[in-house]
Amino acid sequence: MEAWNYNLSIQLNNEPRFHRCEPGWQWSPPPLPDYDLWWVLEGRGQITLDGQRIEIKPGRCFILRPGTEIRATQDLAYRLLVFAVHFEPQDPANLASFPFEGQFVQDREFLEIMARHCENFFQRGDTAARMQSAALVQQILLKLWDELQHPQLSAADRSIGQLMQTIRLEPGQPWKVAEMARQAGLSRSQFTRRFQRVAGMPPNAFVIQARLDRSKQLLLETDMSLANIAEALGYQDIFFFSRQFKALTGFPPSHLRNSARPNLTNLS
Amino acid sequence: MEAWNYNLSIQLNNEPRFHRCEPGWQWSPPPLPDYDLWWVLEGRGQITLDGQRIEIKPGRCFILRPGTEIRATQDLAYRLLVFAVHFEPQDPANLASFPFEGQFVQDREFLEIMARHCENFFQRGDTAARMQSAALVQQILLKLWDELQHPQLSAADRSIGQLMQTIRLEPGQPWKVAEMARQAGLSRSQFTRRFQRVAGMPPNAFVIQARLDRSKQLLLETDMSLANIAEALGYQDIFFFSRQFKALTGFPPSHLRNSARPNLTNLS
Repeated sequence: MEAWNYNLSIQLNNEPRFHRCEPGWQWSPPPLPDYDLWWVLEGRGQITLDGQRIEIKPGRCFILRPGTEIRATQDLAYRLLVFAVHFEPQDPANLASFPFEGQFVQDREFLEIMARHCENFFQRGDTAARMQSAALVQQILLKLWDELQHPQLSAADRSIGQLMQTIRLEPGQPWKVAEMARQAGLSRSQFTRRFQRVAGMPPNAFVIQARLDRSKQLLLETDMSLANIAEALGYQDIFFFSRQFKALTGFPPSHLRNSARPNLTNLS
Repeated sequence: MEAWNYNLSIQLNNEPRFHRCEPGWQWSPPPLPDYDLWWVLEGRGQITLDGQRIEIKPGRCFILRPGTEIRATQDLAYRLLVFAVHFEPQDPANLASFPFEGQFVQDREFLEIMARHCENFFQRGDTAARMQSAALVQQILLKLWDELQHPQLSAADRSIGQLMQTIRLEPGQPWKVAEMARQAGLSRSQFTRRFQRVAGMPPNAFVIQARLDRSKQLLLETDMSLANIAEALGYQDIFFFSRQFKALTGFPPSHLRNSARPNLTNLS
């Protein structure tokens, strides 16, 4: 699958909405005239797509294609809660990679808040709100596509992801591998292996990289002295900071301070 | 302010990130080479933009323009938590309407989850993720722009908004104005006035509209009988359902059922 054009334009063909399927509900539309994003948040049932029978389970999201013959029923004891919207993509080829049989949504929180805003914007009715509603459906499709490319992280891996965020938020804290491992309930070597797998580098290197990134920003955007920056980023010693900075970037921190107005792009 | 092109393209010039400003932090960059989205989630301080002094308060979000002279400090007792990203818009004219002195973010939950995903996607580093990160910054700008156009709802008005969502989710429930007013802690006439102001129509009309919208979908997409649909949508009586449907649309429900494959767009 090739990378997706993030400017993929779509047009909404009806109002995006959540609905709780009524008792007595069954779905048997004429062959679809357009695309239908059909995301099951809750409930159980069965759906048949062009004769292929698939279990409806919570979290399953379908990108139904034009012409598909659909039959669906719900389990009355577990009625369906669905978010659905009909749409038309500018370039249908971009949708070919979505699996016919639906995929399981990984990040429900993110998708649900986008879907809620999508519904609300559309309801407001003015042109700007309708356009934002469509832009949000595009984001949902992009996110689904991205989840297809990147298999689900385990809960343990997700907690490493959160730790990475926290380190980047405050890189100057005294991050110690032993302490981080203890908090994760892992041995030091287990923790380091897992961190390496998720982050692509060991925890110590990640902390150093986060400090380096932030130090560049402070060098460029503030008048803080090198000593202050080193201290703010948890270095005991300005010389050690300078040495580490130079080892990783090839130039001393003062170089960045003195350069008149560097292009930020080239520094990341 | 004219409506914004929702396809507004931007290019990110550095990594989007949250940071907790370090003790000793002060901000005094050279005049900005590009745009900077600078959103204060927590903390207090002062910022001076081209000589104009503004209080930094939680929730304030700045779209800083190229060339701006910036000086900022934080209150050490309330250190800043900031989300920031430098970017370049394809068409700077679209950013002219953002207030120089910052605006207060209304929907922190939505923006924060978008900002977090923005940071995470960028960190992943591959092209698709970088593009999605940029698309999320666009969404954030759109949402900020939208909040500027639509003044903040009071907590009471927001609870009406939630009620509207719930009615649309299950329009077949027996929605009674007296009961909804009681739940909102308002008199019937207070509740009706407030609902009318937020929804643009009185509660009874809103319930009928929600039932009508859903009935169209059920007529088009299912084989449920008219009697089943009427019952699922809370009508005691198929004749009353048909009469109401015809009064609002100009044609009887059976008309929609019989039309071969209507264009959904024209029905909303």
